[in-house]
Amino acid sequence: MRIFSFTDGAHSYWSRNLRPIAKIEPEEIITVKTRDSSDGQINKDSNVKTLEKMDFTRVNPSTGPFYIENAEPGDTIAVNIMEIKNSGWGWTGIIPGFGLFAGDSSLQLELSGPALKIWISDEKYSRARFGDVEIEIKNDPFIGTIGVSPGVGGRFSIVPPRENGGNMDNKIIGEGSKLYLPVFVKGALLSLGDVHLSQGDGEVCGTAIEAPAEVKLSVSLIKRSIKMPYVEFRGRQSIYNEYVSFSGFSNNLIEATKIAVLRMINAFSDFMEPSEAYMLASVAMDLRISELVDMPNYHVSGVLPLDIIKNEEVREKIKKAIK
Amino acid sequence: MRIFSFTDGAHSYWSRNLRPIAKIEPEEIITVKTRDSSDGQINKDSNVKTLEKMDFTRVNPSTGPFYIENAEPGDTIAVNIMEIKNSGWGWTGIIPGFGLFAGDSSLQLELSGPALKIWISDEKYSRARFGDVEIEIKNDPFIGTIGVSPGVGGRFSIVPPRENGGNMDNKIIGEGSKLYLPVFVKGALLSLGDVHLSQGDGEVCGTAIEAPAEVKLSVSLIKRSIKMPYVEFRGRQSIYNEYVSFSGFSNNLIEATKIAVLRMINAFSDFMEPSEAYMLASVAMDLRISELVDMPNYHVSGVLPLDIIKNEEVREKIKKAIK
Repeated sequence: MRIFSFTDGAHSYWSRNLRPIAKIEPEEIITVKTRDSSDGQINKDSNVKTLEKMDFTRVNPSTGPFYIENAEPGDTIAVNIMEIKNSGWGWTGIIPGFGLFAGDSSLQLELSGPALKIWISDEKYSRARFGDVEIEIKNDPFIGTIGVSPGVGGRFSIVPPRENGGNMDNKIIGEGSKLYLPVFVKGALLSLGDVHLSQGDGEVCGTAIEAPAEVKLSVSLIKRSIKMPYVEFRGRQSIYNEYVSFSGFSNNLIEATKIAVLRMINAFSDFMEPSEAYMLASVAMDLRISELVDMPNYHVSGVLPLDIIKNEEVREKIKKAIK
Repeated sequence: MRIFSFTDGAHSYWSRNLRPIAKIEPEEIITVKTRDSSDGQINKDSNVKTLEKMDFTRVNPSTGPFYIENAEPGDTIAVNIMEIKNSGWGWTGIIPGFGLFAGDSSLQLELSGPALKIWISDEKYSRARFGDVEIEIKNDPFIGTIGVSPGVGGRFSIVPPRENGGNMDNKIIGEGSKLYLPVFVKGALLSLGDVHLSQGDGEVCGTAIEAPAEVKLSVSLIKRSIKMPYVEFRGRQSIYNEYVSFSGFSNNLIEATKIAVLRMINAFSDFMEPSEAYMLASVAMDLRISELVDMPNYHVSGVLPLDIIKNEEVREKIKKAIK
């Protein structure tokens, strides 16, 4: 099996002019080493000062691109994600100016960052201390950024997701899933990086458990055309047992989301800093649109597994702190 | 066990002046019979003409209110939902002027309704034919509308969810869950109705599998105060095995949602009417906010279990029709 690393080539923007680092055959199984979303600027020994000095032009470096043999514009590729191995650690941070509450001056809480949390990971779990609370999150790793070359010329920021995929941050793009991407240029030019060991739908503070990783995958070539990415995946057994769902109601979907997230942050605030609770929401709380037709109020649910809290006594106290 | 029916009393608006139909003790187990959201205007033999004649002032009738002994303003009640039994059938409809695509003149598809689908339900499944496709959905019943008296005078529409709960349409409020509601008036004045046998997060066409039902529950009284509803629930085993996730990207969360839903409707449109696919999305497709921080594009995922399609051949064809 061929192994490719970010040292072979990586890029932090999209362009059809990138030079492929390798040609791979359809169905060939390869391993791709990816850097974390800070491009190695943060490591296991970093503290919040590292965040303050970070060069943001380097975020989300993606290893590649790979030229897929025989892929032509109008085809589709399906990326079969076979395995994702972590490197023993990950990080979560609040980057000033980024995230759901960035620039929200109405807040009574300090959520603007910078803040940094380092997780220690084994094969199954990532662990960190948030204030008084021991947190243990089941790893459910996925590829945060994965995409192909855009069809048009120019350089495109790697931050927003687009028709070519990219920084989709979709927690479903994990082991056992199959990601379908449209092909816009000869060879498709597939790249990937920004692995997350765990994340809630929404990634509210702007980062998940960001980690360097090794991804084992193959690419299938399909002679039909799609316009946008989609994912096929298998049902998974529920990892956790005990959940709480925070409702947010508003005539604005983003405001409804903010209400749900703030309720979680408030419930946790007796036990940790608000910024820590915000990061925890980002890595563990799923945002579901419960309804968007009962006007004038939308309903967003923030669904959080309580099993991530190792201290049982604290778990019970947090349940009583929900207002 | 005492059994209460909508014939004992039901209401289609919120008011603190409603007269209780019964006083119940904390922890008393009761059964509450509820009408479907049309207030019995639709039955198992109805067709689309029934929808056209419907009186919408009667929607979401809720059985009650129940006066909870010793509940005082500033307390919290927890509703323990023990069992929800269906009545052998349910309905899904598109009501003109209602739903995610109501009034959207940019659409190329006919999604404005009226349209009506009747489901036949047994203990485990609800079944209906959508165009050429046999659909079988696992019942996962929950209470669509449940709430307490508001704290202020006046009559309030039962359609939008609010601090007092109401028409939350949150699929988590089902068997085994515990819904916490704030108490605003003496006795709390709890009412419930609008049971859904199954629904996707979002309820995009405006209706789920709407059904008359019997709900077994008890109410716990808690001497602390909350501001808004929340739900505690247990992890459930994944009901389905095979899923597909449709991405929608936009700088507007509602538009991102529309893109994800339209992609599903388009994929299904060779096999059924677009309006049928829209109803199917409403009852079976979950809307997850995959990320809302990678500006300028939000990412909404429409997650659909394919196991609901009984014809395996059609299932494979639909996968190939995704664009």
